Amino acid sequence: MTAPLRVALLGCGTVGSEVVRLLHTSGDDLTARVGAPLELVGIAVRRLGRARDLPVADGLFTTDADALVARDDVDLVVEVIGGIEPARGLILRALEAGKSVVTANKALLAEDGASLHEAAVRGGADLYYEASVAGAIPLLRPLRESLAGDHIRRVLGIVNGTTNFILTRMDESGAGFTDALDEATALGYAEADPTADVEGFDAAAKAAILAGLAFHTEVVAADVHREGITGVTAADVASARAMGCVVKLLAIAERDGDAVTARVHPAMIPRTHPLGSVREAYNAVFVEAESAGRLMFYGPGAGGAPTASAVLGDLVAVARNAVAGTRGTGQSSYAGLRVRPMGEVVTRYHISLDVADKAGVLAAVAQAFAAHDVSLRTVRQEGHGDDASLVLVTHTATDATLAAVVDELHRLDSVRAVASVMRVEGAESTP
Amino acid sequence: MTAPLRVALLGCGTVGSEVVRLLHTSGDDLTARVGAPLELVGIAVRRLGRARDLPVADGLFTTDADALVARDDVDLVVEVIGGIEPARGLILRALEAGKSVVTANKALLAEDGASLHEAAVRGGADLYYEASVAGAIPLLRPLRESLAGDHIRRVLGIVNGTTNFILTRMDESGAGFTDALDEATALGYAEADPTADVEGFDAAAKAAILAGLAFHTEVVAADVHREGITGVTAADVASARAMGCVVKLLAIAERDGDAVTARVHPAMIPRTHPLGSVREAYNAVFVEAESAGRLMFYGPGAGGAPTASAVLGDLVAVARNAVAGTRGTGQSSYAGLRVRPMGEVVTRYHISLDVADKAGVLAAVAQAFAAHDVSLRTVRQEGHGDDASLVLVTHTATDATLAAVVDELHRLDSVRAVASVMRVEGAESTP
Repeated sequence: MTAPLRVALLGCGTVGSEVVRLLHTSGDDLTARVGAPLELVGIAVRRLGRARDLPVADGLFTTDADALVARDDVDLVVEVIGGIEPARGLILRALEAGKSVVTANKALLAEDGASLHEAAVRGGADLYYEASVAGAIPLLRPLRESLAGDHIRRVLGIVNGTTNFILTRMDESGAGFTDALDEATALGYAEADPTADVEGFDAAAKAAILAGLAFHTEVVAADVHREGITGVTAADVASARAMGCVVKLLAIAERDGDAVTARVHPAMIPRTHPLGSVREAYNAVFVEAESAGRLMFYGPGAGGAPTASAVLGDLVAVARNAVAGTRGTGQSSYAGLRVRPMGEVVTRYHISLDVADKAGVLAAVAQAFAAHDVSLRTVRQEGHGDDASLVLVTHTATDATLAAVVDELHRLDSVRAVASVMRVEGAESTP
Repeated sequence: MTAPLRVALLGCGTVGSEVVRLLHTSGDDLTARVGAPLELVGIAVRRLGRARDLPVADGLFTTDADALVARDDVDLVVEVIGGIEPARGLILRALEAGKSVVTANKALLAEDGASLHEAAVRGGADLYYEASVAGAIPLLRPLRESLAGDHIRRVLGIVNGTTNFILTRMDESGAGFTDALDEATALGYAEADPTADVEGFDAAAKAAILAGLAFHTEVVAADVHREGITGVTAADVASARAMGCVVKLLAIAERDGDAVTARVHPAMIPRTHPLGSVREAYNAVFVEAESAGRLMFYGPGAGGAPTASAVLGDLVAVARNAVAGTRGTGQSSYAGLRVRPMGEVVTRYHISLDVADKAGVLAAVAQAFAAHDVSLRTVRQEGHGDDASLVLVTHTATDATLAAVVDELHRLDSVRAVASVMRVEGAESTP
């Protein structure tokens, strides 16, 4: 049996505590899978002396994360602190010292993944981060390895559990956004400050990571077009239902020729789409690949135990590599594709207009679309008098074109208000 | 750039041809991902001279697979012949010569995986077989690597597209088995001799592979309890529908303490279960892990292009390992758990009885269950007179106990026939 691999854990919150427990309870299994024991030699925390009911000696805790990472007797580093600093500096120094790193830090990867990957190459170390997207769902390894011989066309993900919970409630009970958010908060699915979730920041970081993996191209969070769900109304959800759809917050990464796009926004998708039945706080990522076809990966997107499971899977992998004296498949950005702006994204749209109930309205509206060469797929009039509305679904158009159409609709006398504009996704991609 | 890795392809049917095409069209991408070019140096076929519209020189084809595998200038071998021999001998010789092998051969892996894995260890070569279960769905790598730090409790899979197509048709149109099979045959989803699919042999081979991977234990096809779908009636499907369920042919591998079970049979599962919405010829594998929770992997289960995508993913992996001079995570059977017989499997049952419509029937039937300590969850009487039937759903019981109850039901005067007995799956597993 090989000498133990010594692990430093940075951070000991929900995920970190669960990692400590799993290392303790699964020690023998992990040894068998790695080919050497994993030994936890230090845990960096913000404050000592907190009651932590964990199966480790008090002496393992330290507030000096820098010194812990630098110790000669540390082989592998697990980072579950989160945020940009001090996580970035710690990970960079570990990698440059040849210590492989497992991290769940989506914000850091989406902001500065390239620096981390370069440091891993320089140090000859592994950087694994399965836990950073969609919790325990094995996703990064399938994308990076299983589909390595294929071409991915599109990735559509429900990657934020809080917003999926809220949208599921809105769909099932007819509640508005505020009521559904209150319920999510009461049940612990939303944080006291839900901004990162409901405004799509969390999903945008994950979209950047997914796009990078799928298309072998560097994509950062700032490249991702982002819209949250605070503007989604009960009427939007009802309208989606009427056309056999459901509203989901989607993280979408697409390749079109030599360019990629990455975006996060609410969208209507058919209920019969595999993503359509992903309910509550579950996550799922749907992948369209040229040869493999339509794949989906489903599971819990967050939580201490699922995230810790993903961290442990990565830890076994980097530990096996260390025993073998090798490195795993690193991130690659060899394709170096251009990141296309949102205006060039092509999709379909659902538009709801409050209109005057009089002759000629439809003609004027249809003319606004025709003037920009946007074809209409369906048009439905609802209500009468002051309640009259027109619901239109377009064929594909670019986002910029659709924005121009909407500008023109605003200017029409017969249109009292553009009540909502929502993208419609989930149709088969064409090669 | 490293020297090319030279690949021998054994078999050139639907999957093999697609592998040839992908190697040709994706050459540059594969080179970037592997770190060296992949060069196809020989293709073993049964007969030369067939028209094969493939982008390779005629000189690459040979009928002498043995000589091809033995060639000094062959580094990696892809086997897509299928069946036991000559595939086994060819793979064994390749592995023992240190040549890594990628195969889609589920029958061989389920019959004699242990010999192949041992040969891989002896030869210091990789044996990868993602394509052998559920086509292009990345599954073996997630089970073997991503969940390496977790404990899998149960795997439930829809792993045969033909039977899922047939059962979907029966569910949606109310057709009987024979009509649905005819439709599947007409549409090319079922082969002229559908035995391997409809009798569950194909699914049983995959169940053995899944059980081995999930539980680090050697499980062969003969260990798998197998029942096909030829006995599933329109009445069973309607009965499932009445209780919010759908009938699926499931491959189930479970761990209970230090024992595992593997089985394939039709079962009712709730429509709200993630597997419940897997339609047509799609496959999906649902995994329950201790920390990760409930995961599902979904995609096309067969077809030339999806299977070739999985083969290429594996080929990139073994080629990368060859470039790095290392081996990947091999199959491990370190846990060495006992394989428990079907009689000890614990699950729930749906039983439909044709009964005499007279007083005391229910009491007699209930007594038969009570005598064996099997609790009833629901009892429903349907019809009257000669059409009277009792539909019962049990709480959990062992298969052997349930069989004893059914024997006793057969002997009751008031029971005219035991119309059907079907297992009910998909409830949450308890730790």
